[in-house]
Amino acid sequence: MASEPSLSASNESIPQMEPPPPAVERFKYSARVFLRSILGRADGGKGLAGQRVLVGGWVKSGVEKQKPGVPSSLSPGAAAHPVVKDVTCSEVLINRLSILRSIARILTGGVCNALSIGKPADGPAKPVTTVGYLRISDGSCAANLQVVVDSSLHTLSQILPTGTSILVEGVIAIPKAPGKYAVELEAEKVLYVGGVDADKYPLSKGLLSRAFLRAYPHLRPRASMVASIARIRNSLSHSTHQFFQSNGFLNVQMPIITTTNLRNHKKMFEVSILSSKADDSLRLAAINDQEAKTLETIKAAIKEKSKRIEELKRSNSNKEALLTALQDLQKANELAHQLEHKHTSILTKTIKEDFSENFFGRQAYLSSSTQLHLESYACSLSCVYSFGPTFQVEDGQPSKSLAESWKVEVELAFARLEDAMNCAEDFLRYLCHSIIEHCPHDMQFMYKRIDNKCIDRIKSMGSSPFARISYTEAVEILNKRFEEKVEWGTILSREHESILADEIYGRPVIIYDHPKDSKPFYLRVRDDFKTVSAFDIIAPKAGKLVQGGQKEERLDKLIERGRKLGLVQEDYDWYLDLRRHGTVQHSGFSAGLEEIVMFVTGLDDIRDAIPFPRNRGSADT
Amino acid sequence: MASEPSLSASNESIPQMEPPPPAVERFKYSARVFLRSILGRADGGKGLAGQRVLVGGWVKSGVEKQKPGVPSSLSPGAAAHPVVKDVTCSEVLINRLSILRSIARILTGGVCNALSIGKPADGPAKPVTTVGYLRISDGSCAANLQVVVDSSLHTLSQILPTGTSILVEGVIAIPKAPGKYAVELEAEKVLYVGGVDADKYPLSKGLLSRAFLRAYPHLRPRASMVASIARIRNSLSHSTHQFFQSNGFLNVQMPIITTTNLRNHKKMFEVSILSSKADDSLRLAAINDQEAKTLETIKAAIKEKSKRIEELKRSNSNKEALLTALQDLQKANELAHQLEHKHTSILTKTIKEDFSENFFGRQAYLSSSTQLHLESYACSLSCVYSFGPTFQVEDGQPSKSLAESWKVEVELAFARLEDAMNCAEDFLRYLCHSIIEHCPHDMQFMYKRIDNKCIDRIKSMGSSPFARISYTEAVEILNKRFEEKVEWGTILSREHESILADEIYGRPVIIYDHPKDSKPFYLRVRDDFKTVSAFDIIAPKAGKLVQGGQKEERLDKLIERGRKLGLVQEDYDWYLDLRRHGTVQHSGFSAGLEEIVMFVTGLDDIRDAIPFPRNRGSADT
Repeated sequence: MASEPSLSASNESIPQMEPPPPAVERFKYSARVFLRSILGRADGGKGLAGQRVLVGGWVKSGVEKQKPGVPSSLSPGAAAHPVVKDVTCSEVLINRLSILRSIARILTGGVCNALSIGKPADGPAKPVTTVGYLRISDGSCAANLQVVVDSSLHTLSQILPTGTSILVEGVIAIPKAPGKYAVELEAEKVLYVGGVDADKYPLSKGLLSRAFLRAYPHLRPRASMVASIARIRNSLSHSTHQFFQSNGFLNVQMPIITTTNLRNHKKMFEVSILSSKADDSLRLAAINDQEAKTLETIKAAIKEKSKRIEELKRSNSNKEALLTALQDLQKANELAHQLEHKHTSILTKTIKEDFSENFFGRQAYLSSSTQLHLESYACSLSCVYSFGPTFQVEDGQPSKSLAESWKVEVELAFARLEDAMNCAEDFLRYLCHSIIEHCPHDMQFMYKRIDNKCIDRIKSMGSSPFARISYTEAVEILNKRFEEKVEWGTILSREHESILADEIYGRPVIIYDHPKDSKPFYLRVRDDFKTVSAFDIIAPKAGKLVQGGQKEERLDKLIERGRKLGLVQEDYDWYLDLRRHGTVQHSGFSAGLEEIVMFVTGLDDIRDAIPFPRNRGSADT
Repeated sequence: MASEPSLSASNESIPQMEPPPPAVERFKYSARVFLRSILGRADGGKGLAGQRVLVGGWVKSGVEKQKPGVPSSLSPGAAAHPVVKDVTCSEVLINRLSILRSIARILTGGVCNALSIGKPADGPAKPVTTVGYLRISDGSCAANLQVVVDSSLHTLSQILPTGTSILVEGVIAIPKAPGKYAVELEAEKVLYVGGVDADKYPLSKGLLSRAFLRAYPHLRPRASMVASIARIRNSLSHSTHQFFQSNGFLNVQMPIITTTNLRNHKKMFEVSILSSKADDSLRLAAINDQEAKTLETIKAAIKEKSKRIEELKRSNSNKEALLTALQDLQKANELAHQLEHKHTSILTKTIKEDFSENFFGRQAYLSSSTQLHLESYACSLSCVYSFGPTFQVEDGQPSKSLAESWKVEVELAFARLEDAMNCAEDFLRYLCHSIIEHCPHDMQFMYKRIDNKCIDRIKSMGSSPFARISYTEAVEILNKRFEEKVEWGTILSREHESILADEIYGRPVIIYDHPKDSKPFYLRVRDDFKTVSAFDIIAPKAGKLVQGGQKEERLDKLIERGRKLGLVQEDYDWYLDLRRHGTVQHSGFSAGLEEIVMFVTGLDDIRDAIPFPRNRGSADT
C-alpha cells in the first residue's frame, strides 16, 4: 500500500510528545479530529489550547480583514503558542505518511476545483497583509469552528466562499480579542481546498428558508438547521434501538416486498419489472411500423376508391366499371382487416399478457406496514421490533404525509393492551430523556430557530405520566366543550385530538378502546362487540405519535371480521396459521420516526424531517 | 382501565417477601419472565431455585409419564419447595389484577383453541396418575425450559403437542433425578393454552430440514435453528449500530424509491401505481364490450356477404344483384373500420398514456444501493452510514442471491482508500468479537448443527489482521498456482477468491486497486488510468463480505467516465453537484447483512439468513 499513503492514524502509534498535552479525541479513520472533539467539550475547547490538530469541513461564512501589525511570514497563532517540540506535528505526518507526495500526485491528477497547499497557488508568498476568518462546520456538532488563515498560507479569495471545503492543520488558541468563540484554530497549513462554483451554488446566501432548501435535498444537509435535524434523527434512531434492545426485544427485518394486500380498497405501490417487458412489446409493435404504414396507405386507398364509387354511382356510368371498382375495394378492405387484426392483437397481448406476468409470480406491493409479518416472529421469539421504511400511496398535503416513511413497529407475545400501552409510553419518554442528553446543542438550535416550546414539551413528556382515557370518555369530554356534538363512532379529528392533548390535558393522552369500524380488522374485539382493544397516543402539538392495540388471537373471530370486510381468506391464510397453531394473546404498536422528529423539534412540515422526502411527483434526487 | 386488567408489573410495586430471594430479572411489560433470565445465568438458574415465576412459551416436545407414588392433589414441586409466605405469588396476582375475572371473560369470549385454567376442562380434578414433561421455548435464548405439569392441573393431551403455546406459573426447582437440565419449573397453575391443529401443523415432527422449513417462513422461527439465526442476526444488526455510533458516524436513512438509475443496462424493480390505472382502462375497454360484440357480428356478416358475392360471381348471375351485394358489403366494411379504429385507439391509449404516467412524475425504481445519496450526506456531515433494505433484479441461484437484502453502507469524508479499508476491517472484527460475547449459546448451536469451524473462523478473524494485496498481486499469486492463467483485467471468480482466502492466506484478504472496467464509474481513477481505488474483502468460506473504495472527487474525471459508459448526465446531475461545490476526497464501503450472517454461522443458503426471503416467483408470505 506504499503507493497510496493514508491520513489514517489507526494503524501506527504517533510518537509521544513530552509533557503529554490534554488529549484531543481523535477520529480513528484519519488523522483529522471531529470538531465535536474540540467544541463539544464542557470548556468549549479551552483546555486544548496549544494543541496542533488537523480539521476538515465546509465554510459557512468567511471574511477577509486587514492584519494588525505583526511581522510577516509568522502567523499570530504560531507566535502565541510555541510548539512543544522541535518537530511539528505536520512534519511528523509528512515524514511518516508522505502526504506531500500524495498531494502532489493529486495536483497533477487534475483536481477541477481550487486546490493548493502551504502557500498561494500563484507564486511565492507575498508579504502578509490580510487574514481570513472562516467559520467551518464538519457536521459532527452544531457549533462551528473559527479558522484564522493568513493570506501567506493560501489565496484567501479561493477559500472564503460559503460551501468551500477545506482540510487544514493548525493550533488551537484562545482568541486574543474576546468574542463569541471560546477557541479558534490558527492555521499553519492548508492541505486541501475544494472550491464552489459560486454562480451555481444555491446555498451561497446566508439564511435560507426551509422551503427553499427543500428544492436541493442533496445539498441542504450543509445548512445548519438541516444538519441539526439529521443529528437529532440519528440520535432518536439509535435511542430506539437502545430502548428495545435493553428491554429484551429482538430487532427483526421484515420484508418490504409483499403479496399480502389487506388494505382492502386502498391503493398500494406495485413492484414489477413489467414496463421494461412492455417496452419490448412496444418495440415489437414499432418494428411493425412498416405494416402500420401499409395499413394507412391502404386506408387512404379505400377512401379514394369509395369516393370513386360514389362518383360512378352518381354519374350512372356503366355497371361493369362500378362492379370492377367495388371488387377492387373489397380486396383492399380484406387486406386492411387482416393488418388491423394483427395490430390489435399485438396491443392486446402487450396489455393482457404482460400485465399478468410478474417477477414474483403475482402482484407484489411495497409494504405499508410490517405488522402482519412481525406477528409471525413475535409468535415464537416473544418480543420483537422492526425499524425500516414503509410505503403509502398518499395524495394528501405533501407537508403532512409521505409516500416513503420510517416506522418502528413492536410486537409483544403474552401481552395485553395495557402492556403495549406501558411499553409505548416508556419508549416515548425514553426518547425524550435521551434526546436532551445526547443532542443538547442541536435542541438549543431548534428552540431558538423553530419552536421555543420544544424543550419544555419534551422535558414535561419525559417526566409526567400520560393521561389515559377511553374513546367513549374522550367523546363525552369533547361533547361537554362543543356545541356541535361528536357522534360516538366517528373518528376523532386532528382538531379534537389537539383539544384533548394541548388544551384539556396539556400532556400526551392515550385514547383506548376505539369503535370497531375505525380500526384494522386484526384488532381484538371486546365483549361489547362495538369496540376493539386499540389505542392511540396523542401528543401536544404533534398529534398522533403511536397507534397500537391488542391483536385478535381467536381464529373464529378473526375470520369473521375478515369476511365482513370482504377480504379473501386465501390472501392472508398464512396469517391465520398463527392462530391455528399455538395462538397467544399479543399486543403491539407502531410509531413513525418522522412524526417523532416533528414532535421533538417542533417542525411543521414532514418533508423537513426526512433526508429525501418522497411524494406525488417528487422523487427527483 | 379497570375493565381490562393487565399482567403488567411495571406500574405497581409487588409486595416484598422476607427474606428477599435472589432476584429473577423480570420483563418490564408483563408479569412473565423471559426464559433467558433463568437459563441464561452462569449457574443455569440453580440460584433461583424456590422462586415462583410466570413463564410463557411454545412446546418443543412433550411426554407423559407415570407419576411416582406421591399423595394426590399436591404437585411434587410444591412439596419440595415450601412457599416462602402464606400467601402465594399467584394469590397476590389474583387479588391485585383480577386475572381470574379476565380469564373467565376470555373463556366466555370464545377462544377457538384449547384453553383452561387450574384444572382440566372436563370436570373436577381426577386423582393424579400421570405427569407431563414439556420442553418449552420463548425465543429469548437458545435453551429450553423443562416444565413439569401434573395431570391434576390440566388435561395433558391438550398441552403436550409440539407447537402448543402455554402460559404457566410455577416454582423453579432442581430436578430430583439428575439429567440434562440444571433446573425445571414445577407448574402450579396453567393460565393459558393455545392448542395446535395437529393434522395441519407442519412443524409437528422433530428435526426438520432447512429446505422444508423454508416453505413456512411464517412458522419457521419456531424451529430452534431459525430462532438462533434470528438472535444472531439481531445481535449483528445491533453491533453494527454500536460500532458506527461509538466511532462518531451518524445513521442516515436514505431513500428506497429513486429516479436515479445509473445501473446502465441492468434491470431494476420499478415502482408504480400504474397497473391499477391500466385496470381502469381495461375496464373502460370492457364497457365497450357491447361494441366489440357488434364488431364481431359485423365481421361475421362481412364474411357471409363475401361468400355470397363469390357465389354470385361463380354463378354469373345478374350484375344488379352483385352490385347490390357489393354495396351492401361496402357499408359493413365502413362500419367495421369505424369500430376497429375506436377499439385500437382505446388499447393504444391504455399502453402509451398509462405507461408514461407515473405517481412520481417519471419512472421510479427500488434503489439497489444508497451509495449516491449517502455521499450527499457525507459531504456535509462527514461520516455517515445507512442500514436498510436494497433491491436487485436477480435471476441467479436463489440460494446465492436475493431480490431484497439488507445492506450497511458507509461513507467517510476527508478519507482515502486506506481509511475505508481500516474502517471496514475494524467493523468486521468488531462484529466477530461481539457475536461471541453476546450469542455464545446460539453460536454453540451453529457449531454443533451447521459448521464446526464457525467459531474458530470468527475467533481468528477477530484476532489477526487481514491480508492486503493489490489486484495485480492477486493475479500474480494465482498464476503461480494455476496452469490456466488468469488474465489481468478479468474479474476474479468465486473460486479464485476461495483459493486466496481459504488456501493461501487462511484469513480474510483485502484486494485493492481493481481494473477500472470491473468497478462502478464513481470510483477514483488511479494515475495509471487502468485501475481504480476500489477494494473487496474476501473471507474464508463466505467469499466477498465487503466492497468499497475511494470515490472520484474530481468533476472532470467523473463526467468523463460517465460519458464513456453512455450515462445521461442529466440523470445524475445532482450527484455531480457534490463535486462542483466543496468537493472532498471521500471513501466508503458496503456490506451485506445476509452475507455476514452466513459467514458467522456457516449457513450456505442465503434464504436461511433473512426472515422472509424474496426471489423470482417467491414472495408469497
